[in-house]
Amino acid sequence: MAQASGTDFGNCPLLPLRSSDVYEFDGDTAVAVVASSGSRSTWSTTVSDRWNIGERPNGGYALAIAARAIASALPDHPHPFSITGHFLRPSQPGPAIIEVEVVRTGRKLSTATATLTQDGKDRIRVLGTFGDLRESTGPGNANVSNRIDGQPPELPPIGECIDRGPMGVEGSTVGFRTTTMLHPGTGWTTGSPRGTATVAAFTSFADGRPADPLSLLFFADGLPPALFDSLPERVWLPTIELTVHVRAHPAPGPLRVVMKTRFLIDGYFEEDGEIWDTNDRLVAQSRQFGMVFRP
Amino acid sequence: MAQASGTDFGNCPLLPLRSSDVYEFDGDTAVAVVASSGSRSTWSTTVSDRWNIGERPNGGYALAIAARAIASALPDHPHPFSITGHFLRPSQPGPAIIEVEVVRTGRKLSTATATLTQDGKDRIRVLGTFGDLRESTGPGNANVSNRIDGQPPELPPIGECIDRGPMGVEGSTVGFRTTTMLHPGTGWTTGSPRGTATVAAFTSFADGRPADPLSLLFFADGLPPALFDSLPERVWLPTIELTVHVRAHPAPGPLRVVMKTRFLIDGYFEEDGEIWDTNDRLVAQSRQFGMVFRP
Repeated sequence: MAQASGTDFGNCPLLPLRSSDVYEFDGDTAVAVVASSGSRSTWSTTVSDRWNIGERPNGGYALAIAARAIASALPDHPHPFSITGHFLRPSQPGPAIIEVEVVRTGRKLSTATATLTQDGKDRIRVLGTFGDLRESTGPGNANVSNRIDGQPPELPPIGECIDRGPMGVEGSTVGFRTTTMLHPGTGWTTGSPRGTATVAAFTSFADGRPADPLSLLFFADGLPPALFDSLPERVWLPTIELTVHVRAHPAPGPLRVVMKTRFLIDGYFEEDGEIWDTNDRLVAQSRQFGMVFRP
Repeated sequence: MAQASGTDFGNCPLLPLRSSDVYEFDGDTAVAVVASSGSRSTWSTTVSDRWNIGERPNGGYALAIAARAIASALPDHPHPFSITGHFLRPSQPGPAIIEVEVVRTGRKLSTATATLTQDGKDRIRVLGTFGDLRESTGPGNANVSNRIDGQPPELPPIGECIDRGPMGVEGSTVGFRTTTMLHPGTGWTTGSPRGTATVAAFTSFADGRPADPLSLLFFADGLPPALFDSLPERVWLPTIELTVHVRAHPAPGPLRVVMKTRFLIDGYFEEDGEIWDTNDRLVAQSRQFGMVFRP
């Protein structure tokens, strides 16, 4: 799974090389094994500054790096069926180490933990169970019919949506990594929040990289917060914990993502997300737990 | 937080003693510290056979034991704001060891991991961020108003509901630990599933123990599966992962719990839960990821 091998990189020979013929997301989540012993392995990476919100890397992007290290340690089970990250401290652009422990390897599922560390400080702790979505397709395990109680978010034609690219906190770069077309009713974009605490959009990588199971971890945290449509002014909404269930391999084409916050209680909130593909299939569900922070 | 100290217990002197003047849930989740060094501590417990589904302890009950060990290691932050457990193997009634690592201690929040082990095998891996709900009450952090977009499940008077106590797989004991009164429209109880994949009930501990934040982890996994109302026959629905966000300290009286499964895809499903207290406040949200298993 490693996208780049260790090469000369100044005084950091183990850091992966970015190559211009690699999609941005793959280059910027590349990991390289540093050491491996039994169930434990150590990976190096470089957190890019191309996925920033303000000065800080997007949480879903950072989670995807850790997930790539886990997937690399679990060759038979490359897809995060259920993964949870707790964000202890903001990560920062620059070198990082990921410690992976494979906790259990099973026939259908394997479970592992990961810790992303920078400057000797834990930034993200991850716990996930991985599988192989190719194996789970078909008539279903245990011969049980699928049940689909939901549908993709209603969005007008993509050309009538609002390009979120230029928006964001000063210094943000993440908006330029995707082509994200927000529902035109996203009121805060024109200074008129509607109070629904919902955000919906078409989204895809700006450089044409197809979405895959790993990248859904980023897309599950890739829209502006749903609460922007409900709060009277812009505040920071740091993620404490993000859980993503990847349910299917996305088909080619723009994803449709919808995020909603129903309960903001004493400064803490959840944000629930669904990601749908061009075949009208649910490909991921997400829920994050966050807090309102006024700098 | 430990409810019982180490005493003579046959050849297992470190196991906590059950006392007849202790509520069942407290006695059966009691932990005692065995060793502690820096950020790591080791706890012993006895997994009771009083919370079984068939021969296996209920997952939410087992998660609550691990959470109690974490809470005991975090005296300033006793409440699980967001906790995730991955169920690697079924736990079993009998002695267990819980290894806790405190990953970060902050002013408002602390994060820790726990591993519940029996017979040298990891059974549950846990990652959680804990806080103090007493501190988060009031006008809210950052002076942001609450947002409540939802309401308790509609249930008829408790006397018109169906007592789930006697129901369950042969050998199950968990149904007798609570007084759980299912919505009378829970069709599978009379052989007529309605196909809504929803289950709702009043629930409280049978011995009168008040609900508290820790016990909400159990109640989040304490009802029969929502999919029983949608599947043509009884199957096993083992939990792979369970995440609970505890949002408030529950008021006295029966909780109202509603669980719903919207997406069963290729044998895997999510189950979303809400727990409301007698003051019509949301006190917890949950989501679990599970699989359909036909023995």
